[in-house]
Amino acid sequence: MTHGGSTWAEEVRYDFSDNSNPIGPPPGLEEALVQAAGRGVHGRFPAHLAEEVLREYEGVEVTLFNGATEALLYALLDLKPRRLLVAWPSYGDYERVARLLGVPSVRAPPPLLEKAARPGDVAILCNPNNPTGFYMPRDAVLDLARGLRRRGASLLVDESFLEFAGGQSVAPELPVVKSYGKFLATPGLRIGALLYKHRDPPPWRINSLADYAIYHTGAERLRAHRGRTAAYVGEEGARVRAAISRCVKSLPTSVHFQVVFGPPPPGVKVRPLWDKGIAGFRYSLRGPSENDVLIEAVCGASRR
Amino acid sequence: MTHGGSTWAEEVRYDFSDNSNPIGPPPGLEEALVQAAGRGVHGRFPAHLAEEVLREYEGVEVTLFNGATEALLYALLDLKPRRLLVAWPSYGDYERVARLLGVPSVRAPPPLLEKAARPGDVAILCNPNNPTGFYMPRDAVLDLARGLRRRGASLLVDESFLEFAGGQSVAPELPVVKSYGKFLATPGLRIGALLYKHRDPPPWRINSLADYAIYHTGAERLRAHRGRTAAYVGEEGARVRAAISRCVKSLPTSVHFQVVFGPPPPGVKVRPLWDKGIAGFRYSLRGPSENDVLIEAVCGASRR
Repeated sequence: MTHGGSTWAEEVRYDFSDNSNPIGPPPGLEEALVQAAGRGVHGRFPAHLAEEVLREYEGVEVTLFNGATEALLYALLDLKPRRLLVAWPSYGDYERVARLLGVPSVRAPPPLLEKAARPGDVAILCNPNNPTGFYMPRDAVLDLARGLRRRGASLLVDESFLEFAGGQSVAPELPVVKSYGKFLATPGLRIGALLYKHRDPPPWRINSLADYAIYHTGAERLRAHRGRTAAYVGEEGARVRAAISRCVKSLPTSVHFQVVFGPPPPGVKVRPLWDKGIAGFRYSLRGPSENDVLIEAVCGASRR
Repeated sequence: MTHGGSTWAEEVRYDFSDNSNPIGPPPGLEEALVQAAGRGVHGRFPAHLAEEVLREYEGVEVTLFNGATEALLYALLDLKPRRLLVAWPSYGDYERVARLLGVPSVRAPPPLLEKAARPGDVAILCNPNNPTGFYMPRDAVLDLARGLRRRGASLLVDESFLEFAGGQSVAPELPVVKSYGKFLATPGLRIGALLYKHRDPPPWRINSLADYAIYHTGAERLRAHRGRTAAYVGEEGARVRAAISRCVKSLPTSVHFQVVFGPPPPGVKVRPLWDKGIAGFRYSLRGPSENDVLIEAVCGASRR
């Protein structure tokens, strides 16, 4: 597997490959999950009350899906692209979904997206981007969308990492796809969304356990967690980046993960990026003492 | 909501509208779910080990999806129908997925499917059928598929209720879509499948909690549960049908649910079938003492 993050069946120490929230899930979410399973919530259909909580949290309409990957498929079925323009390097699943739909996909670096666009194209931009950590402010994204529109193309934005940059959503101005698994540190729950009201969504959109747990967590705790997340990424991220930049070359980043050039360090799990055409790896923040292990591994390896 | 079954947020006594397994989940499954949530399995990606267990259980290749509704979408993306021929009355989601894909759908009663077929059509047959409970034995389904093939069409079979009839799968001879939520009595977990190896499946196919729980239940306990399920439907179903047929008109059935003609009885929740063009309702078996309440409600109402 080349994606970041390990499965429940793997035993991994020092896993910096998983770009889930380093401060973990919001308070109350895991307790609610345990309660849901104990109460047999899985024996009943989802009530989609999580959708109401997330609508309140986002301030725009939300349609939930089983992970961003299903949301993306529905978004492209809506937008009916002639070609998918993928701002590259980025998340590989965009191209898989295009293949499924029989839509050709073309890669372009973000500054060349507009120039590459033809009428009927849909461009997809992951913002902040994975794995580069590059964040385009809201106005710049809306500008890009206007430029694409002048060429008869449109823009779909993936905001799965927006909370980590403390960014502002481009919804409802543009169609947005989002995974909540990163921010909620629960990639195993499969919670994705479109930040608009889908006209014909699946009758059951997420599993009942996740639905119950998000409902019982509530919008207020999600907002508080968003603030804590951005603060942690700001402070601890700056500390780790400063230490790492003293011994290796790396990319600037607005989020909790960063691209470092060179071979993966020994003794820790990171996300190699050969498949993205980058001669380096991505690490993602954990807690401070774990991050010290990473710094030592990266800088120790560079000293040898 | 017109579908059968209630959500976790509803309080319902005497719910005969939900056609989940009346004997409940297989032993071990719910304990494993509680354990998974307690261990934080939702914080990791699925390992897809449930796929191995279900492959062993089915004896054919299995690709898991987030519920039958996602599996169905992938199946139709594979089969690329010009039109979807829906054996009617049946499950309404077939027509929603066809709409999503921009594929016209046409309804036909099962005996007229072959006659209605044109080149490029895909027919979908729910077998055993929901809501009628009608089961076509394996050889009859393969015959139907041959007839359709002669007309340039093909057949997709939904076997979500096969265990309840003690039936035999048409996989791998024909493409099969299946929900495991009915047999496992866990509609809230969103576990569906195609009974073949999909060429380009989603990278994460079911949630980690369901993945963990099915893996730890294992194929042997699933097989034992299949036997117990068919036995219960055979015995208790015969008793309830005999009692009900003494006071109202009903359809013969091979499964745990049955169509009864006339208005819904008072004091119990059943599935009205007006939206399927049937002047009646569907009840689904529960435990024996609950079933006695249903019999009294149906027969008491018919006496008034």
